[in-house]
Amino acid sequence: MGGSEIQAMLTRADLEQLDRDDPLAPFRGRFALPPGVVYLDGNSLGPLPRATPERVAEVVTREWGEGLIRSWNDAGWIDLAARVADGIARLVGGAPGSVAVADSTSVNLFKLLGAALTLRPGRQVIVSERDNFPTDLYVAQGLAAFLGGKHTVRLVEPGGVMDASGDDTALVMLSHVNYRTGAMHDMAAVTRAVQGQGALVLWDLAHSAGAMPVDLAAADADFAVGCGYKFLNGGPGAPAFLYVAPRLHPALRLPITGWLGHAQPFAFEAQYRPAPGLTQAIVGTPPILSLAALDIGVALALEASLSDVRAKSIRQIALLAAMIEQAAPGLFRRVTPDDPARHGSQLCLSHPDAYAIMQALIDRRVIGDFRAPDILRFGITPLTLSYAELWDAAATLGAIMAEGAWRDPRYAVRKAVT
Amino acid sequence: MGGSEIQAMLTRADLEQLDRDDPLAPFRGRFALPPGVVYLDGNSLGPLPRATPERVAEVVTREWGEGLIRSWNDAGWIDLAARVADGIARLVGGAPGSVAVADSTSVNLFKLLGAALTLRPGRQVIVSERDNFPTDLYVAQGLAAFLGGKHTVRLVEPGGVMDASGDDTALVMLSHVNYRTGAMHDMAAVTRAVQGQGALVLWDLAHSAGAMPVDLAAADADFAVGCGYKFLNGGPGAPAFLYVAPRLHPALRLPITGWLGHAQPFAFEAQYRPAPGLTQAIVGTPPILSLAALDIGVALALEASLSDVRAKSIRQIALLAAMIEQAAPGLFRRVTPDDPARHGSQLCLSHPDAYAIMQALIDRRVIGDFRAPDILRFGITPLTLSYAELWDAAATLGAIMAEGAWRDPRYAVRKAVT
Repeated sequence: MGGSEIQAMLTRADLEQLDRDDPLAPFRGRFALPPGVVYLDGNSLGPLPRATPERVAEVVTREWGEGLIRSWNDAGWIDLAARVADGIARLVGGAPGSVAVADSTSVNLFKLLGAALTLRPGRQVIVSERDNFPTDLYVAQGLAAFLGGKHTVRLVEPGGVMDASGDDTALVMLSHVNYRTGAMHDMAAVTRAVQGQGALVLWDLAHSAGAMPVDLAAADADFAVGCGYKFLNGGPGAPAFLYVAPRLHPALRLPITGWLGHAQPFAFEAQYRPAPGLTQAIVGTPPILSLAALDIGVALALEASLSDVRAKSIRQIALLAAMIEQAAPGLFRRVTPDDPARHGSQLCLSHPDAYAIMQALIDRRVIGDFRAPDILRFGITPLTLSYAELWDAAATLGAIMAEGAWRDPRYAVRKAVT
Repeated sequence: MGGSEIQAMLTRADLEQLDRDDPLAPFRGRFALPPGVVYLDGNSLGPLPRATPERVAEVVTREWGEGLIRSWNDAGWIDLAARVADGIARLVGGAPGSVAVADSTSVNLFKLLGAALTLRPGRQVIVSERDNFPTDLYVAQGLAAFLGGKHTVRLVEPGGVMDASGDDTALVMLSHVNYRTGAMHDMAAVTRAVQGQGALVLWDLAHSAGAMPVDLAAADADFAVGCGYKFLNGGPGAPAFLYVAPRLHPALRLPITGWLGHAQPFAFEAQYRPAPGLTQAIVGTPPILSLAALDIGVALALEASLSDVRAKSIRQIALLAAMIEQAAPGLFRRVTPDDPARHGSQLCLSHPDAYAIMQALIDRRVIGDFRAPDILRFGITPLTLSYAELWDAAATLGAIMAEGAWRDPRYAVRKAVT
């Protein structure tokens, strides 16, 4: 049941049956979710794995408190980022050594944009979509401004990058799955087309790594970045990752070169010499507490079959859309593409009063989020989300709309983080 | 007793008396230190405050696990970096709003080096000392290389920056206290001299913030960076900080511009507009677990009188040097300047077999560190370190030297982190 299979009226019992048949159902118990909450925002902050509190406590109390500085060697802190990176490489189809874990997504973007311009010195343009995640655009704009105006960031409407790029294009930078709409690019096709023009391509995997099978090597992608705190469940502000195709490693020159990316950090030489491969992408000392939490999240994602995750995600999106239409007919416009081949792991609906409606939902413990100007965003995280919860979410939304509950003035008050 | 007061042979009872009279003695109980260890490496990784495990557990279990995405508003995560930054500003003599907490020291250096070159467009040289902490040099070298060879990083011997800088110098970049020798610059005098030549000055406070009174505003410094995991006791890889003099804020343009530094991050606009003041220096999402630990460390440093900390540090360095000379006469050469006005909070001694000797010390639970090529480094952290422990450290070193214990071949085996 899902997609075009959904025709008759659905009942909660139908959904409960799907939960009984769900091969991913056991993963739910591996996460600590507050009772009574339907969490549809795991694509903004993934939930807490049950193993994480104990592991973080061990890092704090035993490794830091008792081991002190010795833990860089004895507890393996010095290799932790590389170990987590190898796990992420398996999730995104990268060869061992093709991923580094470091810094934030934004800082990693800066590194790779800088590297791309250095690899394509005769080309001055970075092309992206106007509705790409803003930090991607801001990082590119800041870099272009810093370089004195010789470079341009060219922003186009969704789907328009190929028409806008050409001989002047150093890099096409795209999100694999759009944060606001859930629309997904065909990574392999776009990569081929961009490379056919002599440009490089960078994929932001924030909304796909851990949510579906991704195969950077098969697509022959040049660069990628991604986020540790969404589908990888690494915790708030978890370190991010970056990917560089191994064929580019020999010529790779990153703009930010710090001591942990040196060939011999503890020789304390006065001259920078890059460490081999992607170790050079590690700049400063990684935040070990946050990195240890990411380690747990990545290990959990590696246990699951990402094909199962993807199949459940597609089915859950179709069901949620159908049940919302059933509970509140005609009130919302679907923004996320219908075709599963063209969407990621979220359902986005537009409504002029989306902000207040989402606040009313959150107040009733159905947590999605709002994306300006008018989008209700429901993230689908199949490792934790049951089918019956989707029924409850749709029923709650239907009740809010029927009662007009979202018109309560307190739901109009904008919070700092929306 | 300390400095030139030390003449007669010292006994452990003398040191115990100093502990009884020590106004900072109560701080020791605020830290969780493993029993039997003399920790002389708090300038590499500060020890664990007792309040930290509970606070981190609360962030993980309650704020992340139960609050989920709501904690960005409800638990104040969105303001946490700014709150910690205000505390650090008080520790380093910065006006409110003049410090930002973000990223690593290395990444912050990159931001400020970029900003300095933008503020001094007609000047192409960054001047520093050859024995500055390597990441400072590497970041500058990487930036210069990225900019295509127009810029130069000029490295000089310690104390030589004024002779080496002139009309071509955009920035002089120095560590306030040298990581390897403990030598300290006169911040106000050097700042005046550099600015007299029209250049900007950047101070790396990694080995002074939290270790002594620092007054960036009184010195009229332009820029500073510093580390969260040394004297601020923020935990392994804690977020770092940066300082920009308020007079420079209006013209400040940073090379890395991310979404959390946007004037309205949650408007998700396509065009970057910097947030006012130093909020623009925040780039990506901060690592909240690590940031919460830093918050505890900074709060603890704010409770102490930094004048008391400095006075005890100077006295402890003089005593440790005298007791080591008493326990192992003539075997070590003091590298740290004798004059308290010219040294930071560490005692560094050279010996051709420094690495093996330090391994033997660590094996006997006296933990300092080795700095290539030949330095034994003893960090002095007055909040946790008792006088009697210094006696024990000196006695242990004396025994190791008398027995030749450091000649054991296993102490020659180099570890990954030294």
